[in-house]
Amino acid sequence: MPLPPIAPLDDDLERHLVATREATIEQLLELVRMPSVSALPQHAADMVRTAEWLAGQLRWRGAEDVEVVKTALHPIVTGRIHKTPGAPTVIVYCHYDVQPVDPLDLWESAPFEPFVRDGRMVGRGTSDDKGQIVMHLAAIEALQACRGELPVNLTFVFEGEEEFGSQSLYTWIDSARDRLAADVAVISDTGFFEGNRPMLTIGLRGIMYAQIDVVGSAVDLHSGGFGGVVENPANALATIIAALKGPDGRVRIPGFYDEVRPLTDAEREAMAALPFDEEAYRKELGVPALVGEQGFSVLERRGARPTLDIHGLWGGFQGEGSKTIIPAHVHAKISCRLVPDQDPATTFARLRDHVQEIAPPGVTVTVVEHHGGMPSVTPIDHPATQAAARALKGTFGVDPLFSREGGSIPVASAFDHTLGLPVVLLGFSQPNSGAHAPNEWLELANLDGGIRTIIRFWDELAASSR
Amino acid sequence: MPLPPIAPLDDDLERHLVATREATIEQLLELVRMPSVSALPQHAADMVRTAEWLAGQLRWRGAEDVEVVKTALHPIVTGRIHKTPGAPTVIVYCHYDVQPVDPLDLWESAPFEPFVRDGRMVGRGTSDDKGQIVMHLAAIEALQACRGELPVNLTFVFEGEEEFGSQSLYTWIDSARDRLAADVAVISDTGFFEGNRPMLTIGLRGIMYAQIDVVGSAVDLHSGGFGGVVENPANALATIIAALKGPDGRVRIPGFYDEVRPLTDAEREAMAALPFDEEAYRKELGVPALVGEQGFSVLERRGARPTLDIHGLWGGFQGEGSKTIIPAHVHAKISCRLVPDQDPATTFARLRDHVQEIAPPGVTVTVVEHHGGMPSVTPIDHPATQAAARALKGTFGVDPLFSREGGSIPVASAFDHTLGLPVVLLGFSQPNSGAHAPNEWLELANLDGGIRTIIRFWDELAASSR
Repeated sequence: MPLPPIAPLDDDLERHLVATREATIEQLLELVRMPSVSALPQHAADMVRTAEWLAGQLRWRGAEDVEVVKTALHPIVTGRIHKTPGAPTVIVYCHYDVQPVDPLDLWESAPFEPFVRDGRMVGRGTSDDKGQIVMHLAAIEALQACRGELPVNLTFVFEGEEEFGSQSLYTWIDSARDRLAADVAVISDTGFFEGNRPMLTIGLRGIMYAQIDVVGSAVDLHSGGFGGVVENPANALATIIAALKGPDGRVRIPGFYDEVRPLTDAEREAMAALPFDEEAYRKELGVPALVGEQGFSVLERRGARPTLDIHGLWGGFQGEGSKTIIPAHVHAKISCRLVPDQDPATTFARLRDHVQEIAPPGVTVTVVEHHGGMPSVTPIDHPATQAAARALKGTFGVDPLFSREGGSIPVASAFDHTLGLPVVLLGFSQPNSGAHAPNEWLELANLDGGIRTIIRFWDELAASSR
Repeated sequence: MPLPPIAPLDDDLERHLVATREATIEQLLELVRMPSVSALPQHAADMVRTAEWLAGQLRWRGAEDVEVVKTALHPIVTGRIHKTPGAPTVIVYCHYDVQPVDPLDLWESAPFEPFVRDGRMVGRGTSDDKGQIVMHLAAIEALQACRGELPVNLTFVFEGEEEFGSQSLYTWIDSARDRLAADVAVISDTGFFEGNRPMLTIGLRGIMYAQIDVVGSAVDLHSGGFGGVVENPANALATIIAALKGPDGRVRIPGFYDEVRPLTDAEREAMAALPFDEEAYRKELGVPALVGEQGFSVLERRGARPTLDIHGLWGGFQGEGSKTIIPAHVHAKISCRLVPDQDPATTFARLRDHVQEIAPPGVTVTVVEHHGGMPSVTPIDHPATQAAARALKGTFGVDPLFSREGGSIPVASAFDHTLGLPVVLLGFSQPNSGAHAPNEWLELANLDGGIRTIIRFWDELAASSR
């Protein structure tokens, strides 16, 4: 099912957007060409360059107090356009960092040499999240060109560590409460429902990310001479990982579910009502079966239940052919997606303690925390959420769906808990964008619809505050 | 405990060996410099070069019918010195291929730039098995120089796939029965007991080597968007591996132990009588505890019981930092060491079937066989074994120990079963040689003692046949 037809804005704005469409696409291509991979130290300079580029874009649009904020890791770009006295103030949050690109050999083209074909742009970050940055920039430019002013006051927060735990942003938000005074925070880093149906995300999972290291002897041992005598770190790691989740799909870390808020009947009914074709979804993923925690639907498991997943395994001989060693050390990256009211610190401590508890003798096991983010849920009936819903309906002609989604945007809970702001998750990627995979892409219709929805949203917010 | 003092040979031979010692060491350095890694296709030319070098060495010593036999993979070097009518004919087997060198960063020097320091030579293949080739070459040269002839007739079999399953050798042996007619086969690819005590190996484990591949979706998936909905191939692989062995150290593949010949009381008593310090052994390995199958001693587990070990694990994100994917595919290298009367084909079939049986739904699992080798046991009381024991005692002044060792030399069973020859495992590496690990080394005293023992062994064989 394609995206519903996009309703045009009033004449001037629509003409402007049509006339500048190529330039907007070119701007996104330019932004995607910057390899701003936050997880890899070799891209530190690219991060700074991308941040400076964004600051320039804000200044060019007349933003004040524009700053590329230095942090312990990657810079935050902030600034404000506060030129509409009496109008509500909106924090606009996006992130300019992207996921690593490996496995590179599965990309059909270079990840940072984006191109447009068949109405799509392909490249790392097109959907997650650079396309959404460009939607906001284009919306501002159109309003300034056609009306000379914005209906709301905007405060920009573009961070560079979303794919890496947002640690610097937490610290900065805490220290920048004054300049972040606002009425609502809008996070544009989500997408539409299966079939590209317009959707508002009303819940996000949190995350606890860690690494497990298993070490045996100081060097690899000959498996002939030592097999049967020493614990094999690879076998030990497998034993540990296998024990963390049962065949029923439930995580077996003691206490893991203690703080999980049960789904209400109303929430379960709302999820069951979403137009979701399990078999089509399975086929699109190309897996023999959908699996997971017993007793919950696919959408519940994806959006409203916690998980435990291994992201990578490595150790020992990985080449062609055979080598008969007992590897000296092996490793796994692991995370748990969290739901209200779990928190990453408690979950990490429970994981670490349990892994130590079940670790077989004969090896040394350590568990190191990488990053964490709180889960969050926003109420459907908040006026800002309702303004976003009206904006989506205005653009696409249909009521948006409301869904709890499985991803994590750690900053959502910071805006909520630290700044006490209502959070609206207004994002525009089509589903299956390959956000963390090869050949990430953005449907250009979603870019077009996103810009128009953002303009309508600001108008709706301004109207609802009068 | 150092190697016992080496008793000199008669004057001429001893003088010759002392005078040519530097040249012998230089010859081993030259051989080790050739990176003959059989498992890695990029070393195919190095394999041929090494084989040609060996053929040249045999020709230079007057060998006849020298041939670098082309095979499906790496060449076999053969040839003969049959100039002593009436004397027994001995097959001399060594292998010129070596293990891969990774992890390269743990080598203190380049693996193929060997050097001598503190009475040791360090480099890939010094112990396994190039040093033992050079011992034979030096023994031949000394006898020819001092006596003009050898006490026995020698047929050489130097193969290039010992670390890769010996597949080509099996085929060739079967087709070369005529030219391999002999009285005994001597395999020099083993070593001494803990403490560098002279030892004869009287049993070897076999091996079954395979790879397990677990595939989920066609591409990596975002663990936020899909975690809890699809089976994670890494978690699935861990579950499979964990189920293959119990906490009691026993392999849980149905039927795995069916053909295992129980140890006799006499065998267990002989093993218990070996001078073995478990705690010193544990400390040298640097592991917190020795573990393994319950109900068996360390030496029994190492030499006379089957195993299951993972040699390498890989898949998904292995870089610094964090990436939140569900990997599309993950892999493991796995082998079982086998004891009489297990065989690799049956063991592979059982592994494959069991893995398919326990594979969780939602992923596709395949098990591919890499190579296999039969286990073998040789009798202590065979005249050839006794000749080797006298030779070791003549050189080192002590009765050798007899032990069943954990490694696999697949060709041992081919000489035994295909050619019907008694097999003597007369090897000279010091223990803990790092044979399959970084910084492999050879104690030069073992090189010296090995050459003298080989000369004495040939004399003993000749004498015992008269």
